Amino acid sequence: MIKTESNRVLQFSNRPVLLSGASIGGKTEGEGPMKNEFDRCYPTDYINCKTWEQAESALQHEAVQTALQKAKLDASDIGIIFAGDLLDQCMASAMSAKDFNIPMAGLYGACSTFALGLALAAVFTDCNAVKNAIAVASSHFCSAEKQFRFPLEYGNQRTPTTQRTATAAGAVVVGHANSGCCIESAMIGTIRDLGITDAANMGAAMAPAAADTIEKFLFSTKTQPRDYDCILTGDLGAVGSQLLCQLLFHRGLDISAVHEDCGNLLFDSQKQDVHAGASGCGCSASLVSTMFRRKIENKELQKVLFVGTGALMSPLSVRQGESIPGIAHAVLLSNK
Amino acid sequence: MIKTESNRVLQFSNRPVLLSGASIGGKTEGEGPMKNEFDRCYPTDYINCKTWEQAESALQHEAVQTALQKAKLDASDIGIIFAGDLLDQCMASAMSAKDFNIPMAGLYGACSTFALGLALAAVFTDCNAVKNAIAVASSHFCSAEKQFRFPLEYGNQRTPTTQRTATAAGAVVVGHANSGCCIESAMIGTIRDLGITDAANMGAAMAPAAADTIEKFLFSTKTQPRDYDCILTGDLGAVGSQLLCQLLFHRGLDISAVHEDCGNLLFDSQKQDVHAGASGCGCSASLVSTMFRRKIENKELQKVLFVGTGALMSPLSVRQGESIPGIAHAVLLSNK
Repeated sequence: MIKTESNRVLQFSNRPVLLSGASIGGKTEGEGPMKNEFDRCYPTDYINCKTWEQAESALQHEAVQTALQKAKLDASDIGIIFAGDLLDQCMASAMSAKDFNIPMAGLYGACSTFALGLALAAVFTDCNAVKNAIAVASSHFCSAEKQFRFPLEYGNQRTPTTQRTATAAGAVVVGHANSGCCIESAMIGTIRDLGITDAANMGAAMAPAAADTIEKFLFSTKTQPRDYDCILTGDLGAVGSQLLCQLLFHRGLDISAVHEDCGNLLFDSQKQDVHAGASGCGCSASLVSTMFRRKIENKELQKVLFVGTGALMSPLSVRQGESIPGIAHAVLLSNK
Repeated sequence: MIKTESNRVLQFSNRPVLLSGASIGGKTEGEGPMKNEFDRCYPTDYINCKTWEQAESALQHEAVQTALQKAKLDASDIGIIFAGDLLDQCMASAMSAKDFNIPMAGLYGACSTFALGLALAAVFTDCNAVKNAIAVASSHFCSAEKQFRFPLEYGNQRTPTTQRTATAAGAVVVGHANSGCCIESAMIGTIRDLGITDAANMGAAMAPAAADTIEKFLFSTKTQPRDYDCILTGDLGAVGSQLLCQLLFHRGLDISAVHEDCGNLLFDSQKQDVHAGASGCGCSASLVSTMFRRKIENKELQKVLFVGTGALMSPLSVRQGESIPGIAHAVLLSNK
């Protein structure tokens, strides 16, 4: 039974476990400091496909397939798949999921999608709506550049505050087990809009939502930053991470000692031309599915508060001068 | 507690109730046979906004606000809002939801989004993850034409098989009550792809998925078409409805006596230039939120199997020659 605090933290009494996780990456990911955390990194971002969109779908497909194999499960064992990506109409997810014959719930939370998927998978498995669920999300540098900014052939210059969209997918199988990395609780985020309009500064757009979610989660659970081995944001990057710590510091919360950000971890910003770091659904999906799940499973880490962050914008909304609100969903992962 | 049949039907033992529902429409909707089912229809599709996208967001916003008022609830009483639309990156939903300060889960299921939202809202309320939830979806003829086909000024000719995207939004508040229109069970659909590539024939793309979901639901629940007052599809329109009945007839299921389709109901195809009928998330969202909810509440109808249907495509996927898979989610609405 799920017990909800009046302040919206979902507590999972059965503590569903991440039975397995898998991540598939592209060329830049395979040249970075996290390359050994991926199940596979391709030598080019074509992923043996004819279009960038097919390539992204192939990443997602392989992540799901690999996660199933690792869990020693078949697609028929999965009651639901929560999938999402950044593409218009979430086509990478649709084209991937159609091969698996698994009931599918399409999600859109921009780069926060994987955290949202984890939370929903936890609700479904904890209350026994399904025995096993999959949460998966993907992104692809080339499909994202083409859609949100410019085709690569244009040779566009990117500003220092921009982040490189991860060419990656991450998938987990969520189910029941006596031990492992479990989902202890979650909190669905609320949209926050501080009027950011610079589409080249996603970190600033998302930081307020992340601060809001973290503050609410800590307050609701009566915990402090020191109670966590890690407060892990999805992809605030270098700029957004600084802003997050400042925003929370002004609210009396110092998370600097425990804060990590997948966008800061995925690439080596000194050696790789990634400006403010990594972004995209696949950024947090890949690292949480493999590295963080593994570290919690083997008790290197006990409690990780994962806060997936998303900037809610489209190329059209930006051209129309709309602001870019953010959203952040929290998922507490811990060793069971 | 949710009991899941091994064949994936979610049974809601607490039978969450649609405490209220509201629908807001545009000009063509206000000139059609369903005009009195809407809480409000605007005289133009501008909805007092400067862009079509803002207009669609305004429809969604007003639908949510009206549903809250009718339920005599405040936004702070709502634990989660499940929202989606057809726009790139679901911007109508984001821009609407940001004003309500309600935890938000963005969904994408094309025109099946409202059914997906209802199912998820039912899971969350039935297992007491939240006390009350909102499910809302919207679409807008002008924003959809601009995004998926051509701006209106182009004067494009539409084929006989095309459907007119509803300029509409529908929202329901889902919670607990002793009586009313309740969500008895639901089944998340699986993607079906029969290789349709004609973006001007959405009905044909979606009919296989609808047939699949209906057949599975009936088989799993050991029921027959005659056990329902209505098997209501979302927006197959005239072409898709015929195909659906044929597909099921070949599988030994004759639903013709009980089948209705929101796409066939919303407009008067004799008097209004709507070709094969209505489509869009708002089509089923509006009619289910008001008319069908009301009829079940006052016992004109006892059991309605609502099957929201979605065609999974983007303008880019169509240009790339990809096929258009479909998905259909089932929600059994009944009088409690």
